[in-house]
This record gives sequence, C-alpha cells and structure tokens, in this order.
Amino acid sequence: MSLFGFSLRPRLPKSAQTAKDRLQILLAHERRDGSDGPDYLPMLQSDILAVIRKYVQIKQEDVDIRMERNDDISSLEINIEIPSPEQEAPARLRSRAKG
Amino acid sequence: MSLFGFSLRPRLPKSAQTAKDRLQILLAHERRDGSDGPDYLPMLQSDILAVIRKYVQIKQEDVDIRMERNDDISSLEINIEIPSPEQEAPARLRSRAKG
Repeated sequence: MSLFGFSLRPRLPKSAQTAKDRLQILLAHERRDGSDGPDYLPMLQSDILAVIRKYVQIKQEDVDIRMERNDDISSLEINIEIPSPEQEAPARLRSRAKG
Repeated sequence: MSLFGFSLRPRLPKSAQTAKDRLQILLAHERRDGSDGPDYLPMLQSDILAVIRKYVQIKQEDVDIRMERNDDISSLEINIEIPSPEQEAPARLRSRAKG
C-alpha cells in the first residue's frame, strides 16, 4: 500500500559530496470516498517539527515545507538540512553541560 | 532537494472505492560523508506514532512499519489505515463526553 506509488528505496541523486545531513519527511493522507473527516496534515506538521527538535537543533531557514491538497489526497513534504555536530550542540547536551 | 527523487504529487493507484482513510509517512535520513552521527529514524518512529495518536485512535494492527538502512541513507515507511469516524470516537471527544 503506497500512496506515493513507489518502493521504499529512496533513489538519491548521489551528490559527490554530501555536506550536511538531510532529513526528508513525506506525509500523504488519502481520504475515503465521501469522507469529510479532518485533514490531519496541517495539525501533524507542527507536532512533527516539535518531535524532530527534541533530537536536533534546526533553524527555521533550514526547514522547507510544501503542502498540496486535491479532492481525495493531501500531501506534506518537509525537507530539513541538519547542521553537523560541530555546528550544533543539542539543547539536551548544553543543558546537561550547565546542570 | 528530494531524497525520494520524485515530485511531491503522490501517484495513487486510484482504487475504485476507498473504504478507509489512509495515512502514509515516509522519512529518509541522508548522512553526510563520514558522518557517524546518530540515526534519528528509530527515535522518531515512536514519537511520530504518538503524535498521530493525539488526533486519531489507531490500532496496532492498522499500522505497518518498514525501515531500511544502507551506508548513507536510512528510510522509514509508516502506513496507517484510519478507521472511519463511525468506527472511532477520538479519545479527546470521549473524554470531553465524560467531562
């Protein structure tokens, strides 16, 4: 069952040098015929970003969000460039350092 | 920048009748060359399911999870069948009903 109509194996255009870690999240919500249920994606968007921020500090400019909706499908794409550890001291480690 | 090498528009094999809402979440984490940073996906998996459960009651048997990892990319696919409202009284509504 793949809403994105492809297998899990991401086909990555291998950039010669990957400078940063990248995280991509794709969500698709297919509504059953005649369903007027809620559109979960706008609600999930901020929560998922909050979950990611639990593990890694990300700046707003490193986050790219695209959302699309048609009659029966809504889709949300979140692309995040993750600073390398040298550029980032996760909040948890810093707070431990202060503790 | 698409780790999944395709545009956001999900190509959905339109089943004649869509009986249930479906939610698909795909995560890909590309690690920069030489990076030995943490693999975020196992950590994100349970948190993302917890976020979804804030909005809709899902049974474990309605959740299908696949994870793959190679040298520079980990990917996680979560497929969820969402019961129709008639089959589901979201916890929040029920707790409000009790309130």
